Amino acid sequence: MGLRIGIAGVTGAVGQEALHLLEAGSLPIDEIRLFASARSAGRVFPFRHQVVRVEEIRGERLAGLDYVLLSAGSSVSRQYAPVAAKAGVVVIDNSSAFRMTDEVPLVVPEVNAKALNRHSGIIANPNCTAAILSVAVWPLHQAAVVERIVVATYQAASGAGAKALSELDAQVRQYAAGETIRRKVFPEQIAFNVFSHNTPVDESGFNEEEIKVAQEIRKIFGEPKLGVCATCIRVPVFRAHSEAIVLETRRKLSAEEAREILRHAPGVTVVDDRKANRFPTPLDAAGKREVLVGRLREDPSHPRALALFVSGDQLLKGAAWNAIQILERLAAG
Amino acid sequence: MGLRIGIAGVTGAVGQEALHLLEAGSLPIDEIRLFASARSAGRVFPFRHQVVRVEEIRGERLAGLDYVLLSAGSSVSRQYAPVAAKAGVVVIDNSSAFRMTDEVPLVVPEVNAKALNRHSGIIANPNCTAAILSVAVWPLHQAAVVERIVVATYQAASGAGAKALSELDAQVRQYAAGETIRRKVFPEQIAFNVFSHNTPVDESGFNEEEIKVAQEIRKIFGEPKLGVCATCIRVPVFRAHSEAIVLETRRKLSAEEAREILRHAPGVTVVDDRKANRFPTPLDAAGKREVLVGRLREDPSHPRALALFVSGDQLLKGAAWNAIQILERLAAG
Repeated sequence: MGLRIGIAGVTGAVGQEALHLLEAGSLPIDEIRLFASARSAGRVFPFRHQVVRVEEIRGERLAGLDYVLLSAGSSVSRQYAPVAAKAGVVVIDNSSAFRMTDEVPLVVPEVNAKALNRHSGIIANPNCTAAILSVAVWPLHQAAVVERIVVATYQAASGAGAKALSELDAQVRQYAAGETIRRKVFPEQIAFNVFSHNTPVDESGFNEEEIKVAQEIRKIFGEPKLGVCATCIRVPVFRAHSEAIVLETRRKLSAEEAREILRHAPGVTVVDDRKANRFPTPLDAAGKREVLVGRLREDPSHPRALALFVSGDQLLKGAAWNAIQILERLAAG
Repeated sequence: MGLRIGIAGVTGAVGQEALHLLEAGSLPIDEIRLFASARSAGRVFPFRHQVVRVEEIRGERLAGLDYVLLSAGSSVSRQYAPVAAKAGVVVIDNSSAFRMTDEVPLVVPEVNAKALNRHSGIIANPNCTAAILSVAVWPLHQAAVVERIVVATYQAASGAGAKALSELDAQVRQYAAGETIRRKVFPEQIAFNVFSHNTPVDESGFNEEEIKVAQEIRKIFGEPKLGVCATCIRVPVFRAHSEAIVLETRRKLSAEEAREILRHAPGVTVVDDRKANRFPTPLDAAGKREVLVGRLREDPSHPRALALFVSGDQLLKGAAWNAIQILERLAAG
């Protein structure tokens, strides 16, 4: 018997990726239901041999589904996830609403798939930067125990949604046309610029994105004391996040050993050709489910530290693909 | 009596900035001579009330000058710096040719101006990333002794020269026109992408730029054992480099104390408005002589570490302005 699956927020960038991944995947699906805000209701999307009409999201419409992927922002998740879970629907929530809730597993399948064994109807999909980092760092943590992570990010515009993506496109067209570059979505110009992640900064000086990254990695790894210092920066890239990471490990890990471990790690593609100067780039990572890892080198400023550079598609491994992996694991029982 | 000053490589991006800075400055100049390769000889540039013709560079043409700024690449510097110095001309060399030579001072005036007191005719101007970092970190080093620096960079296209700058411009125009994006200067697409700095990588896994940054900071600071781990990345920005820095200090430095120190530091402008989410950006730093410093925060993953983010114009403080500062100090005796 096939599954009944819903996607809420299907008109968004992550919702669209999830729809494509489900369509291309091998899960037996009897019924697919697509939800969005009233504004988008009535739009249609092809799915396998059907044409599916987008419905306005409502609690009672979720009942009867086996799984629903919520990807319409935190307030929608806070409203509908508990309703759906109560009606027996398993919710995979892409928002940050429940990620740090104790009884909600926060899952990157390559790291902590076993956390899926105990849930109360809601499973959280992590922040994109945390998910991408986790895939690359977890295998090294298992081998040598990571004690501290220092990370600086190069985050794509599409991490801030479709409108942010359009703004980068619009600004470079304004530049090419010799027009004044206009800002609407981001507080700073995104074309030809980089800037600190545009989320509120707390009294510690860290912004919400940086705090999420630290908290979520600790929860995914099951290491509540792991030290994390993140600096999250936007760059004028359409798609895929990159991260410059320095890890301090309990046991010294050589670059060679790390490379060998990562070559066999799930969800990782090693791109580390020193001779040809070929390393991960967001352009190469865009559209790929795997996280690209390279620039592996021993940090000369610490007796047991390793530097690396990763690129991963934040709409796929950082969001939709991770959610579909969770769905596939749950469906496989 | 006025000075006789030469600029070699005047048609390049740094040479042009140096010419403008000299023109706008208050140094008494009796004679200005402009040099470049044979290809550029004959071009003319205005300077104060004259029009100056570019000459092909030759050793004998440098004799008679008081100072020459060499900014035409390492091989030109290796050929002409010793000749000029022997003829009694003081050379300020913007290339990497002599930076690590023992008897050549490597100078960031805000840090080690006193190194100018002893030289043998050649003074080296540091790598742009090292110069910008030095201005921001030196005042904190004086206050609390920096023991380790972890830095990830966001380096502008113009750091690779005028052709690289044009390539970023050309690629975004190709994108806007719906054409195929073509690569010539950089090995990777620079528009809408980030990539590891395109200098050769040695057996340690670090590239030349990263090794320069580490070596030069140690020499400028006079701290041969200072630990530095750099990851140098190109971003699609026209002008000004940014750097995400984590410092470990011997004495714990609070964010507040660091901010106060930097507010009074020469060459630094603090941009650290947490409430308004206003921090350094390369767009704000472009065209400024000062290094912008912000995102000051205590790193929760280490008992005595401080995180910061800086942006600085690599053609000014990272090159031409630093060279002119050196010239002004020397001229002032």
